[in-house]
Amino acid sequence: MDNDQQDLAKRIQALEDRLDIIQLIMSYPLALDSGSSEYARSAWSPTGIFDRGNENPAEHSGNYLGAYGVDKIIEETTGPAVRKAREHGMAHLMTAPHVVIDGDRAVATNHNQLVQWNGETFVSPRITSNRWELVRQNGRWKIERRILRLLTGSKESRELLGRELTP
Amino acid sequence: MDNDQQDLAKRIQALEDRLDIIQLIMSYPLALDSGSSEYARSAWSPTGIFDRGNENPAEHSGNYLGAYGVDKIIEETTGPAVRKAREHGMAHLMTAPHVVIDGDRAVATNHNQLVQWNGETFVSPRITSNRWELVRQNGRWKIERRILRLLTGSKESRELLGRELTP
Amino acid sequence: MDNDQQDLAKRIQALEDRLDIIQLIMSYPLALDSGSSEYARSAWSPTGIFDRGNENPAEHSGNYLGAYGVDKIIEETTGPAVRKAREHGMAHLMTAPHVVIDGDRAVATNHNQLVQWNGETFVSPRITSNRWELVRQNGRWKIERRILRLLTGSKESRELLGRELTP
Repeated sequence: MDNDQQDLAKRIQALEDRLDIIQLIMSYPLALDSGSSEYARSAWSPTGIFDRGNENPAEHSGNYLGAYGVDKIIEETTGPAVRKAREHGMAHLMTAPHVVIDGDRAVATNHNQLVQWNGETFVSPRITSNRWELVRQNGRWKIERRILRLLTGSKESRELLGRELTP
Repeated sequence: MDNDQQDLAKRIQALEDRLDIIQLIMSYPLALDSGSSEYARSAWSPTGIFDRGNENPAEHSGNYLGAYGVDKIIEETTGPAVRKAREHGMAHLMTAPHVVIDGDRAVATNHNQLVQWNGETFVSPRITSNRWELVRQNGRWKIERRILRLLTGSKESRELLGRELTP
Repeated sequence: MDNDQQDLAKRIQALEDRLDIIQLIMSYPLALDSGSSEYARSAWSPTGIFDRGNENPAEHSGNYLGAYGVDKIIEETTGPAVRKAREHGMAHLMTAPHVVIDGDRAVATNHNQLVQWNGETFVSPRITSNRWELVRQNGRWKIERRILRLLTGSKESRELLGRELTP
């Protein structure tokens, strides 16, 4: 390749990275709501951490507060509480993320709206701010850390949304 | 073009396909909520099928359950029930789809949240899983089949979301 | 660059424009919900106008109806009413926009769902149609005009969603 071609290739790679990350994030709620636990696992780096803080109303048991690793993440998504929620009608409606990439690392930020069927209509018990720290491993983007905070007014939950915004 | 340029051109085409499909899906609720029936028709392949199952609460008449073709799809979006809903305040809030492309065929998967104004606030009577099977026709992506299922807990509605997820 | 390379570069630029605009729109609610007013300002052209009509239920004061410029836009997002809403739990859930580009001008169209924590659950007092008129300035896309209308059934709010849809 000549220099011009190399420049074009770099721009294409940057576009692929952005779109791959948007697609990874948008695929994750599909895995959660369908119970595709093998896929959900593949979205994470083996050393991935899900940091959900300690503020969630306990519709899931207290076993899943704080920060924990991939085995426990997958245990949760296949466990009785989430399975029951799924069978009663549940959806994770995520907004398309804002993405900032720096080489082999990236951050995606978005909102997540949990909705549940109550037998008559859909209600929205939890809306969260989400920060996804990503890492490129063997050419594929993986979740290294997901930080989630309930958007019920805490300073931490609000600041999470603005952390990657540079004027 | 030399080989390097052909490789770049293929990657660009793949990006264009992904973005074109995301844009096609995101345009569709705009057509539904504005009543742009000519545009809505142009989004479909002439042989397109809308398969919405038989489980929808009948705020629309029973004429529009099961699977039906493009003429009936457009008849529905311009018909009195949907027109009335539109004039009372209605929005189809769709998540950005996850897209899998295989040559001239593709599948996009997402959630759709129907919201309606009840005179005081917005309520959410229906949230669905959506599978859009697409086909490239004369260089443009068209909807060949849309499968929609209410996310009120049925196995079928959940599995629809996970069908294209390969770890 | 030879002609083939110039063609590829044009297609890459078109992809970058589309993705940049989608990202600009998706970043904006993050700024609103985190109170990142410096970033919010940078998203606008200095001559930008926010046209929100006169139909909004007045949870914000009447100072912010009609059409107004960037100083007032930023004043509003940092003002006591929005700050209080933020501290009580608020999120702007925007759908990924449909984008139409014409040279250095573009239009993005999407839905915005405002949700608020009421101490028990999240409620949705306002859903709007949004038209974002954008302009390229020094290589960056900026908001020149944002038109927002409540989706409570008005003809104007519905037509806003369909204006850029060409079959």
